[in-house]
Amino acid sequence: VKPVYLALLHHPVRDRAGEIITTAVTNLDVHDIARSARAYDLAGYFLVTPIEAQAQLIERILEHWRSGAGARRVPERAEALRLCRTAPSLGVVVRQVEREAGEAPKVLVTSARAVSEASPLEPAQARALFDRAPAILVFGTGHGLAPEVLAGADGALAPIRRHASYNHLSVRAAVAITLDRLFGDGVGDGVVAGRV
Amino acid sequence: VKPVYLALLHHPVRDRAGEIITTAVTNLDVHDIARSARAYDLAGYFLVTPIEAQAQLIERILEHWRSGAGARRVPERAEALRLCRTAPSLGVVVRQVEREAGEAPKVLVTSARAVSEASPLEPAQARALFDRAPAILVFGTGHGLAPEVLAGADGALAPIRRHASYNHLSVRAAVAITLDRLFGDGVGDGVVAGRV
Repeated sequence: VKPVYLALLHHPVRDRAGEIITTAVTNLDVHDIARSARAYDLAGYFLVTPIEAQAQLIERILEHWRSGAGARRVPERAEALRLCRTAPSLGVVVRQVEREAGEAPKVLVTSARAVSEASPLEPAQARALFDRAPAILVFGTGHGLAPEVLAGADGALAPIRRHASYNHLSVRAAVAITLDRLFGDGVGDGVVAGRV
Repeated sequence: VKPVYLALLHHPVRDRAGEIITTAVTNLDVHDIARSARAYDLAGYFLVTPIEAQAQLIERILEHWRSGAGARRVPERAEALRLCRTAPSLGVVVRQVEREAGEAPKVLVTSARAVSEASPLEPAQARALFDRAPAILVFGTGHGLAPEVLAGADGALAPIRRHASYNHLSVRAAVAITLDRLFGDGVGDGVVAGRV
């Protein structure tokens, strides 16, 4: 298990018009992203929402699958969902990771478009960073992370489809691809032909 | 646009116990996978189910987002869903692709575990194949494609997490990662550090 965490923000994120909103939690964002986080050996997955009723909804989903009837019926789902926690803000996530990892984490943001404030990190650069410090990979729901989150980060990962005409991947797909680029089988051990 | 198509099979697939079943269509399998297929410039995405009522459900979803109120509100979703079609079986998909592409397609299957009947194709080998013939990438719902589908294919892609202890990615995540490994920005043009 690497000291790398995921955070999925439901606030502050942008809507289509660029306004700052709070999105509703999507059930499959809990499940799919937990399974991806588990498959790539992350240390934890925070679902971030300032709305208490939404956090309670997530906790009920987690309870069902982690210790209720769901856990007996689908044990591999329970294993993935054990990584999940809720948090009211990214700041709380940062402090929690610092407590667990014993060191202040680097906050790396993601965006479908280039974040102008900084040169994006390529996968190899991000991996070098993970060797030196704990890290939080931050993804946004809606139409992406608010400018204040992008501006306040320690770095930004390169957009996934920066040279493509269509870059409207779901956040579930974006998380999966990002984790595979950073931690996939082909990385480092040279087992996959055509990848380093 | 490459002559590479996706097929998501709801039958014949396995359940947890290995029995052959027909799964129900999941709304997000329509949306998420269409967006991934569009982002990576595929030629089409077939949702395969032998159940007519399920095919009609999919067609209603497609109608809403492609030409109804949804298309005006979220045009990039309409653009992705224009790739979608339903088909009653993989055989029908093969014949349809042959008509469109003017040549019999290669059928490449995917699996979370190694398919014993053949050596898996690495991404570079699959890309070499796409240069020579149209192709269909086949993904299974439930607990994966039935043995008869695996055995009848022209080739199998290597499992995504073959060296990991946990390989229960969602099919939505598996499709996204597979397309990125085959067609991602880092492939071929050398723009992503650390990948070929």
